[in-house]
Order: sequence, then C-alpha cells, then structure tokens
Amino acid sequence: MLKKFDSRYRINYNNSDYTGKLSIPDLGSYVLDNSGLHSEIMGVNIRTIIKKNYTWVISGLHFEIGDLPTINSFIDIHTKLSSYTPISIQRDFFVTSDGKKVADISSDWLIINAETRQPVFLTDVYPAVANVISEDERVVSKYKHLRFNFAGCKPVSTFKIAYSDIDINKHMYSMKYLEKTLNRIDIDFFKNNNIRRIDANYLSEMLYNQDVDVFMKEIDNCYQFEMQIDGKPMYRAEIEFEKIK
Amino acid sequence: MLKKFDSRYRINYNNSDYTGKLSIPDLGSYVLDNSGLHSEIMGVNIRTIIKKNYTWVISGLHFEIGDLPTINSFIDIHTKLSSYTPISIQRDFFVTSDGKKVADISSDWLIINAETRQPVFLTDVYPAVANVISEDERVVSKYKHLRFNFAGCKPVSTFKIAYSDIDINKHMYSMKYLEKTLNRIDIDFFKNNNIRRIDANYLSEMLYNQDVDVFMKEIDNCYQFEMQIDGKPMYRAEIEFEKIK
Repeated sequence: MLKKFDSRYRINYNNSDYTGKLSIPDLGSYVLDNSGLHSEIMGVNIRTIIKKNYTWVISGLHFEIGDLPTINSFIDIHTKLSSYTPISIQRDFFVTSDGKKVADISSDWLIINAETRQPVFLTDVYPAVANVISEDERVVSKYKHLRFNFAGCKPVSTFKIAYSDIDINKHMYSMKYLEKTLNRIDIDFFKNNNIRRIDANYLSEMLYNQDVDVFMKEIDNCYQFEMQIDGKPMYRAEIEFEKIK
Repeated sequence: MLKKFDSRYRINYNNSDYTGKLSIPDLGSYVLDNSGLHSEIMGVNIRTIIKKNYTWVISGLHFEIGDLPTINSFIDIHTKLSSYTPISIQRDFFVTSDGKKVADISSDWLIINAETRQPVFLTDVYPAVANVISEDERVVSKYKHLRFNFAGCKPVSTFKIAYSDIDINKHMYSMKYLEKTLNRIDIDFFKNNNIRRIDANYLSEMLYNQDVDVFMKEIDNCYQFEMQIDGKPMYRAEIEFEKIK
C-alpha cells in the first residue's frame, strides 16, 4: 500500500489573485486534488465509496503559510495520513516551490453516510486504515477548535449559495467557504499583508440556495469569521496575518 | 516563430460542477492559460507588455461545445491566431479529450493602454503580428454581436464585484462573467441539459466593488444575459442549450 504520495502542479494564469501570487483557495484546491489522487490509489476515493453510499467530508483545516509562488511556478505536494480516531482521519500536506516552503497544511476528514449525512465508523468503510498511517515523518498541527461569540452582532454580508459553489458532494465546496470569507476583507489588504495561518472548522454542510450570514471581527493580527444559517453556526475560521515590511 | 501551440491539462477534482463534468468557466480558464503560454513564446505575454504599459483584454468569445469530460480526464488544447484587424486579433482553440471534440472556441482580443484603458493599434505593440497568423487551418466562427433590449425590465440579481473576481489586469476576470450568469439558471438545468453554444460580448471593464445588475431572458432554447452598471450595458451573453434525451 502506497503510504505517501507526491504530485506537482503548475500555477496557471487563473490561479493567482490580482497581485500575481497563488490564491489561497486555489492552493487549497491543489492539495485537495492531490488528496483525491492519493485516495484513488488507496481504493477509498470519493468516487469509489459513493457507490457504497458513503462520502468523505472535511471537518477542519489548518494552514501554515510561507511564500506564495507566482504564475507559472510549479508546486510540489507531498501528502500522507498522520493519525486517525474511530471516526476521523488526519491528512497532512507539505507544499513547496523550488524547495522553499509554500505551506504546511493539515486536514481532518470524516466518512458520512451519503443519504443520512451522519458520520460512520471509519473502519467500517476502510478496514485497512491502520496500515496506511505514516508515523515516520513530521506531523502538521491539527486545526484549532474555534469558539466565537457573535451574539448581538450584525452580519457583514449575506449570500445565497449558487450553482458554482456546489461540488460533487452536492454541498458547498470547502474552498468556497474560504473564498467568501477572504472577500469580506478589503482588496488592498492582500498587497500589504501576508496571511500566515488559517484555521477552519466545518461544523455543518451548507446546501444550494441556502441564505448564509457572514460575521466578522478583527482582533490584533487576526480576522475571525463565522457563517450562520438561521442563527445556527455552520463554519468558523481564523486568519492570522503579518504586515509586509 | 511558433505559429501554433498545444498544451494538455488534467481535469482536477475542483474543475467539475456537481454533475462531475468539467465546468464551462474552468474550460475557459484552461484555454486562456494555453493562450498565455503561447503568447509568452511569442514575446507578447501580458506580463511582458504590461512593462511597456499595455495589456490584453478580451472583447468577445464564442464557444461551440461537444462533450464535456469528467474529473481525471485529460484535455488537449490546440491554439493559433486566425486573423487580425488594426485593433483586434482572433485566437482560436480546438479542445479535445481522447480525440473527441470538447469545444471549438474563438476569442477576440484588443491591446489597451494600461493607464488610459483605451485601445491602441495592435501593430504599435506587436509589429510582427502578420507573421504569426495561421491561414492553413480551419477557423472558428467569430462571436455574435448581441443586441438586447432590457428597457423596463427588472434585474434578476445584483452583485458587488469582490476580491476573488479580480485578475492580474485589476478588473473582473472574463470567466467570472460566465460563472455569474450560469449561477442565475436553476441548478437542475445542468443535469437535464447540455449547453451547446455561448456567445459573449465584453463591452466595458468592470472593477472592484462596483454594483452590477444582471438581466436575464429565456427565449426558445436560449438564455440571454446582460450585465449593467448604473444602467450602462457592460456585458452580454447568449447561451444555447439542448435537452438531454
């Protein structure tokens, strides 16, 4: 069984933001693609397990960001599974460009029943999981559990989930959450600051046509975001940044 | 001088819509990337001419769509310049997957002054243009000039242009126009219909934070869209579809 997996991607013209550097949601899409390819080799790819009425969903993400490469650079992604519990698994990614750190990323995953959308025991679907854990390498920190209190606050924006937000899991694509929170920050921020850390908690699935309220707070060198549907928290994220000197 | 250029791309996990087939805006991003790579070899890439204070902008697009491939398929893109006028150039793309037609696409481009945003004579920036036109191959039809009358109509939606909509040209990325119009169609449309033709007219640049009104009409087997800012038409598109039998 192939415990580790590497893939290389070119930063295409449309993968940058206006500054010419790799956009962070696109970085996230590349690591998720790398993860999909690795899971395929392992025989537990989303398109395989969906036939047995199961699917993977992401419950948390943690990004530690170095230097974001520019258009036409190549990125190398190394991935492996670091640990698991009866219902979740941690997958780490080490992303470099020309040998320099782009980002270390950890992701937490659950398997859910595709019909009931409830979590199932990982070993029911993937009995061999213990055999694919790599313990011989560095582990990326797990995502931070975020607890915010936006009681009494007004949303900074409300959006309706659209066709382009929905992935093959028929819910909002994880990187769309990130895109929509970054869009709440003024555009000049991205030329004057580097984002250094992101922690994201995916609490509940969000579906087509739902109306989502976005709450936002700036504390020191962090932005905190929460998405709610009918007052219920669905997603939280904390974004730490550093001013470019 | 390299008159023709080919590149190959894998359809990554995030390049499909919820049906698992290549999303049309992502197809558009791949052909634009292929065009960027070809222009680089020609020495007139956007990142080269911007240093002389010029940039490329798209004025029209025409898609004739065959079968959209699924995740993990490869697409091959063949491109060449088909014709030019004193201020515009037509670039064609032939996209196939496993030898089968994905789409034939034509695109019309202007060079503008990056400061004044006004068109300039193509030959002022690219004197050798006549030498790179390929006349020995089939030409894709030019985009249709669209004339709609939405006077007295109410917009079907209004959106504010966000950070994630803006490209290195510091205006709304051409494929975002397409994404935002497709989002006005009900999601079930995409499993019951195939889009066969798209014509798009880019009339004026749209900028960060501008409020855009979207107008929409369904006529026979076509959707017609117009985007307006303060009542001024900025973009028009016509999308022709065919019911899946």
